[in-house]
Amino acid sequence: MSNAKFDVTAIGNAIVDVIAQADDALLVSHNLPKGAMNLIDAEMAEKLYGIMGPGKEASGGSAGNTIAGIAMLGGKTAYIGKVADDQLGKIFTHDIRAAGVTYDTRPLTGGLPTARSLIFVTPDAQRTMQTFLGACTQLGPEDVNMDHVSASKVIYMEGYLWDLPRAKQAMLDAAMKAKENGVKVSLTLSDAFCVARFRDEFLDLAEKYVDILFANESEILSLYQTDDFDTALQQVREHCEIAALTRSEKGSVVVKGNEIHVIDAVKGVKVVDTTGAGDAYAAGFLYAYTQGTDLKTAGKLGGAMAAQVISQYGPRSEKADVLKLKAGVL
Amino acid sequence: MSNAKFDVTAIGNAIVDVIAQADDALLVSHNLPKGAMNLIDAEMAEKLYGIMGPGKEASGGSAGNTIAGIAMLGGKTAYIGKVADDQLGKIFTHDIRAAGVTYDTRPLTGGLPTARSLIFVTPDAQRTMQTFLGACTQLGPEDVNMDHVSASKVIYMEGYLWDLPRAKQAMLDAAMKAKENGVKVSLTLSDAFCVARFRDEFLDLAEKYVDILFANESEILSLYQTDDFDTALQQVREHCEIAALTRSEKGSVVVKGNEIHVIDAVKGVKVVDTTGAGDAYAAGFLYAYTQGTDLKTAGKLGGAMAAQVISQYGPRSEKADVLKLKAGVL
Repeated sequence: MSNAKFDVTAIGNAIVDVIAQADDALLVSHNLPKGAMNLIDAEMAEKLYGIMGPGKEASGGSAGNTIAGIAMLGGKTAYIGKVADDQLGKIFTHDIRAAGVTYDTRPLTGGLPTARSLIFVTPDAQRTMQTFLGACTQLGPEDVNMDHVSASKVIYMEGYLWDLPRAKQAMLDAAMKAKENGVKVSLTLSDAFCVARFRDEFLDLAEKYVDILFANESEILSLYQTDDFDTALQQVREHCEIAALTRSEKGSVVVKGNEIHVIDAVKGVKVVDTTGAGDAYAAGFLYAYTQGTDLKTAGKLGGAMAAQVISQYGPRSEKADVLKLKAGVL
Repeated sequence: MSNAKFDVTAIGNAIVDVIAQADDALLVSHNLPKGAMNLIDAEMAEKLYGIMGPGKEASGGSAGNTIAGIAMLGGKTAYIGKVADDQLGKIFTHDIRAAGVTYDTRPLTGGLPTARSLIFVTPDAQRTMQTFLGACTQLGPEDVNMDHVSASKVIYMEGYLWDLPRAKQAMLDAAMKAKENGVKVSLTLSDAFCVARFRDEFLDLAEKYVDILFANESEILSLYQTDDFDTALQQVREHCEIAALTRSEKGSVVVKGNEIHVIDAVKGVKVVDTTGAGDAYAAGFLYAYTQGTDLKTAGKLGGAMAAQVISQYGPRSEKADVLKLKAGVL
């Protein structure tokens, strides 16, 4: 593991975010489930963009945000995800490479456009995402660069991929390859609704493949169909080698068998936009973990990264800010 | 004037901004003149994008920013500018319409892409712009909706258009039409280098057509080839009915013949990115002016709008913030 070419290789939906402020009434009148990620088709994307206020664009995608964060922290990284050969695809490609990530997935030509997620940010800083997957739907096993996978310390995958049968196969192939090569497999559950859609498969995946599981409170409760956090915590200890459970203002809990750390959230953060909080946590955690720190330090860097990203608009922090955090924690 | 359909119709280069942090060394090593706007071709745009850090995208363009600001303040507005029928063009169109602006210029098809400006923001919050004009180069007299022009209280034009011969003709046609219909003509000088390129023509334009001139200090000094602000001030009083001269932290000076107001800048602003400061000033000024306020109030709303936009990344403020400013000044 110490001579690995990459600290982390991530696989995810390659998405450009379109972010705009919105009031709660708009969510209600268009039946948008607050705080969730919802998949929409091209027609609905057009319609919702029409009712959206002036926006700002930034490269996003859950695993894309995480891997960019790890790269900005100084980690060696690769990313696998599908954009189209269009303007948004060029933006996504530029941003992830400019962050320092190796990204060489072949873009889709002549078909669907690059994915975008319409993100409505309400005055309470919650984000509600409506995602048109476009070119992401064409990610398949042939896109997984197995050399990257086997040359990594950890691979990181997002539960969101499970919505796409070929992407799901790509994930499973990558997980198997990782296992064969002693590469750790990490997964984020992504979204409570996503967990509800695929609960049994995620449980099976967690038991068979996942070494490091990331989940927020609603996701882990959904996975184990309980409304009691501690009940879920006791179960996940049996299923995964390591679990990092994020709880918003309550901080996070990191567990590895009998080793448990309850880590407080960073205090005094003025929350502007919660987009990317979980992704940033995973970035901080995995960077520290692959540098060989203890789990508590990994959880603290995760929490610091999350606190940074929610204090600004958009899903990725600036490198200068990230390096300041790193100096403060490590 | 009081029954005009539009308070302001603006004509400008329709541009999507790509904003990234940069250090001074990067500007020096690529010979980018700090604080200026420089025109580049497609090849150079590609090259500079390659050396740029991860970016964020937002609709921009000087007059586009101004007209969006006026619309968010509650003004009735129209915009004339050329995008291509591509993803960036759709973003520009969405954002300006979502701000409340009437925008019906026919997009360019099958040719050049939508313009973009690569904006390097240095730690001192200065912005250095490298602009690939793309589809903007195809704006011509045929794109000027003369019904919008003659149905406005004021038309607003950016000096940047002068770099393009057909856009320049479009501007002149609009200015003549405005004059015939008793519509006030306003112009921003845009950039000191732009003024240097076209000094005699701008002087001629100011004398013949311009009722309200917007300029920052370096632009007005360049126009009158002096290094003394007061000298330039005395000259512009002779040339234009009204001049609004912005001076960064020194505030602004608004002059109309013998009426002169020296307006202090808003204090205590944490400057993040100066992109759009002048555009926002013009928005506040023109909104107040077309609502019939006195010139001092117009200058104060301009200053407040500028202070707001420089406290954040990107060239346009959020509507909620703009409405708070308005309530504070008017």
